[in-house]
Amino acid sequence: MSNFHGLDSITLNPGDDLPPLAPGTIRLYNMRFCPYAERSVLYLAKKNIPVEVVNVNLVNKPKWLLEKNPLGKVPTLEHDGKVVYESAVVNEYLDEIFPESSVLPKDPYERAHQKILVERLSSIPTALYGVVRSTPETRDAAVEAIKKALANADSLLTDDFYGGKSTGFADLSIWPFLERLGLFALRPELNLGEVPSKENKKLIAYIERMKQQPEVKAAMRPIDQHAAF
Amino acid sequence: MSNFHGLDSITLNPGDDLPPLAPGTIRLYNMRFCPYAERSVLYLAKKNIPVEVVNVNLVNKPKWLLEKNPLGKVPTLEHDGKVVYESAVVNEYLDEIFPESSVLPKDPYERAHQKILVERLSSIPTALYGVVRSTPETRDAAVEAIKKALANADSLLTDDFYGGKSTGFADLSIWPFLERLGLFALRPELNLGEVPSKENKKLIAYIERMKQQPEVKAAMRPIDQHAAF
Repeated sequence: MSNFHGLDSITLNPGDDLPPLAPGTIRLYNMRFCPYAERSVLYLAKKNIPVEVVNVNLVNKPKWLLEKNPLGKVPTLEHDGKVVYESAVVNEYLDEIFPESSVLPKDPYERAHQKILVERLSSIPTALYGVVRSTPETRDAAVEAIKKALANADSLLTDDFYGGKSTGFADLSIWPFLERLGLFALRPELNLGEVPSKENKKLIAYIERMKQQPEVKAAMRPIDQHAAF
Repeated sequence: MSNFHGLDSITLNPGDDLPPLAPGTIRLYNMRFCPYAERSVLYLAKKNIPVEVVNVNLVNKPKWLLEKNPLGKVPTLEHDGKVVYESAVVNEYLDEIFPESSVLPKDPYERAHQKILVERLSSIPTALYGVVRSTPETRDAAVEAIKKALANADSLLTDDFYGGKSTGFADLSIWPFLERLGLFALRPELNLGEVPSKENKKLIAYIERMKQQPEVKAAMRPIDQHAAF
């Protein structure tokens, strides 16, 4: 049985009531196509924490979302009157309140290195948004940036996963962006060719390996749904 | 006696040898005017950790810096063959290896909130760089952004410090940027008026309070030095 309740529930809009939150229940404010929120969905799946998901409209935000999180962003976590947001903060917090299923390693140096990997892989999200927002004038540079970011990610893979022999903090942080690379195949006008390119051998094998992980199966959505969004 | 050795040592350039690092010594690769590196200088000062500082040229980077940290940035921490970088990662790591002087609170929710505050105050660094890089065309929007960011910082002050009754993780993270606000007074062409403005009463009192903290006294530099840089 899934640890999620309401992962595909309808999106709530301004004017919709905030559903009551039962004591002891952990709630995740989510948007089904937000890669940052997906980082916490993946984390909750991997840790197998029972959670109630409330999907919200991020273009027109319900007032109660802004009352919980003044930045009005997802993921936002709430339980027993406590509200935590920002994907990295939420995931680290989940490890601290549920240490028995900690995804981050206990060793300070190894912990630091998972966070450093997130930083070193952050050229992927930056380049991905760069391509999406590119104009005909800036397209070549944006395409170059995503290819460079993926080659860098390929070079950083020294084991099955960025976390070693199993998925870790960095894997669950970068995956939502790799999942969305398939969107580029639907936009031939970008002239991107294959992303990742055939040369990114380790990264290609990694993506296939990731798709077999239970937490990825629980969180990922078909590329046509992303495209429709 | 200061916990720092070499905080004002000469800047090392490409071609300069990497000074040998003695076993057990903690080294901080630093640039004297980098606000991100200053976050870790403040942290090391507050925790009173003996540290050897190596100042590096970030425009022309010594090759050995890039070998330690492929991103070529500061702060970079090294001890006993372990290298950690990115200011937030370095500071959290320092708390983990020296827990007796932890700046971050032990409680997971309070810890999370210090990190959330850093995020909520991040409009200040963004706006500060926005003003510095503004052109005559974008200047009005950049000035508006810094005023808004400072009003937001003022509204978030609910105690003596963002950390409560004493300085915490968020205070030491935002201070380097507040320290540099004085640079604007030296650029009347920006037409910024006073920053923070007289209405940001809590923030003005906070800045004066921060200047009295031992770690701030250890780390801050006169504004004319920043300006000369």
